[in-house]
Amino acid sequence: MSLTVAASTERLSPETVFRLLERVREQAPRVHAITNAVALTFTANVLLALGAVPSMTIAAQEVAGFAASADALLVNLGTLDDERRAAIPVAIEAARAAGRRISIDPVFVNRSSLRCDYARELIGGGPDIVRLNEAELDALFPDRSEVETLIEGGTVLAVTGPEDRIESRGEDFRLLNGHPLMARVTATGCAGGAVLAAFAAVEPDAALAAACGLSVFNIAGEMAAERAGGPGTLVPELLDALYALTSRDIESRLRAA
Amino acid sequence: MSLTVAASTERLSPETVFRLLERVREQAPRVHAITNAVALTFTANVLLALGAVPSMTIAAQEVAGFAASADALLVNLGTLDDERRAAIPVAIEAARAAGRRISIDPVFVNRSSLRCDYARELIGGGPDIVRLNEAELDALFPDRSEVETLIEGGTVLAVTGPEDRIESRGEDFRLLNGHPLMARVTATGCAGGAVLAAFAAVEPDAALAAACGLSVFNIAGEMAAERAGGPGTLVPELLDALYALTSRDIESRLRAA
Amino acid sequence: MSLTVAASTERLSPETVFRLLERVREQAPRVHAITNAVALTFTANVLLALGAVPSMTIAAQEVAGFAASADALLVNLGTLDDERRAAIPVAIEAARAAGRRISIDPVFVNRSSLRCDYARELIGGGPDIVRLNEAELDALFPDRSEVETLIEGGTVLAVTGPEDRIESRGEDFRLLNGHPLMARVTATGCAGGAVLAAFAAVEPDAALAAACGLSVFNIAGEMAAERAGGPGTLVPELLDALYALTSRDIESRLRAA
Repeated sequence: MSLTVAASTERLSPETVFRLLERVREQAPRVHAITNAVALTFTANVLLALGAVPSMTIAAQEVAGFAASADALLVNLGTLDDERRAAIPVAIEAARAAGRRISIDPVFVNRSSLRCDYARELIGGGPDIVRLNEAELDALFPDRSEVETLIEGGTVLAVTGPEDRIESRGEDFRLLNGHPLMARVTATGCAGGAVLAAFAAVEPDAALAAACGLSVFNIAGEMAAERAGGPGTLVPELLDALYALTSRDIESRLRAA
Repeated sequence: MSLTVAASTERLSPETVFRLLERVREQAPRVHAITNAVALTFTANVLLALGAVPSMTIAAQEVAGFAASADALLVNLGTLDDERRAAIPVAIEAARAAGRRISIDPVFVNRSSLRCDYARELIGGGPDIVRLNEAELDALFPDRSEVETLIEGGTVLAVTGPEDRIESRGEDFRLLNGHPLMARVTATGCAGGAVLAAFAAVEPDAALAAACGLSVFNIAGEMAAERAGGPGTLVPELLDALYALTSRDIESRLRAA
Repeated sequence: MSLTVAASTERLSPETVFRLLERVREQAPRVHAITNAVALTFTANVLLALGAVPSMTIAAQEVAGFAASADALLVNLGTLDDERRAAIPVAIEAARAAGRRISIDPVFVNRSSLRCDYARELIGGGPDIVRLNEAELDALFPDRSEVETLIEGGTVLAVTGPEDRIESRGEDFRLLNGHPLMARVTATGCAGGAVLAAFAAVEPDAALAAACGLSVFNIAGEMAAERAGGPGTLVPELLDALYALTSRDIESRLRAA
């Protein structure tokens, strides 16, 4: 275990995190995000501040084209209406056929059993990344062995909370950046999920991409919380911080194990 | 009349307003908001800044579960599309069966007779609170006696404008806080309606809850307007003010009769 | 060509731009915007900061009433779901029958051939203004002669980019205001389209309205970019600048040819 931690720490160096951030900024990956209605604008602005290019249509007729021509697909279940319910499988199939990275955020599966069933089926398809919190993880997989099967199949889990952890069949990471004020702003988790998707578009190792993407987002959140007067000013400050994030910021702040 | 005003003034003391705000912060009530597409993000952020927990799905299949497990339901008609039209009666029925507080904002009923008819039917069901402006009130109830019947039935009216008034079969209140710049930001009224719903979740006297909730929101708006450079910076400043609002702020600013 | 430029420069004086801005502020035109889900809140706030009155419902049953009673209609195809697809032709017909100004933003027609076909049909109806970027223009009209037919029919083209140009059967304009940071915020183009629609509601010469509206929006964007720390703070600063824009700001900054 100490060996793993040591290896991880080595691997998640500030240099690695910044190198992937620079890759996102240079390659400007297209991320097609089918996300919830509350998170739409903030998610698009987070992707743009990061240097990625968002698109967000959910029309079933169009979504295959958008998903296939994007570099990554994000599916967030926060407001799962009929149109999204119809669009999501179409988008996933198109993204998979085109070899794109697929990320799923099963938001609020702990609040609706119908949504939980829907999410389980999606996740059964083996996405690259699933981002969720502990309550959502428990609701989805009451039996821990199912989680292990999923991870063995190649899916990376990003379990977010006061502390984040990345679980994969390769390396695991524990990520300690972030700030409690971020939880007082809607859709920070959802927007963070879009950052993961953008990083996964430029880095083949999905666990490393997830660890770097979450760290970047949470470091920007920390810097913003220090400048902000509350949850309102946190939003513009977070976008400014993400846009301007330097290697020094990452070096002085990264906390991972 | 002077007696009533005296009684109200007594009752809506800064201490009462702050006590209810503290109750919201401590109990963190869940508010399920079926609100218009323009107001979604701001409403969620207002609820989070206040200390409440928002959920906002409108899918007819899921909305009953969300409404029943929340502490209050807010229904805002600002963008009344097919999905919302189908979800609203389902959510109201589930909330009522579970004994939850129900608040309705019949936005823009003065701009569409179809919406007006739909709103009249909803309001006929006797929600706890109806929040609207004078133009909407006139459109809904051209005959003043219908308003009186509604109030006698136990519904509280929160009529917002440059000056707000709360009408109930118990006490009435006149509320004088707020700032004209708030009208230059979209969905301030809608987000204020969510604050009412959160307060009604923690206080059995719906008229008192409405008076305290509106006062808290409008005081935060006043403080934000003094700090803001215009309607753009008003939004983050309002959220910051709501998050940090102290008993002193309420004491020095509350204007109610 | 130098003659045309001279004439344009004369015509797009700071005084003209400010006079139209004042007209918007005084007349407070109602703009009904069927816009994409990502742009909704920012568009409403831009219209309010400008002094216009937004409405945004997309329900097919109601949209005719809203479009006919508004002073201008904006149709933006950014997220073209079923409900919008059904509402748009209804709204356009109602607006046309009522003699209202119609503006179309065929967003992302270069990313979906289905959307491109849909947009071509809408634009074939001869709206007052079409706002798009070069890639969207190329996708819509691979044959330049079709553009000329459209313009001859009376439609004004507002082609936005690092430099904007207004093409009409009367005068053309080249507009040089704006700031690169605006492209790092979602929906700035869409919100700018709403400003065009508001100006077209108060000025019969649609080309002049488009030139003045875009200049006002881009000058506000420039001023905001100078004050902002990044794309996050740009949003509130842009709204503040738009709200407070003076004749001096326009005089010292307007760059048009």
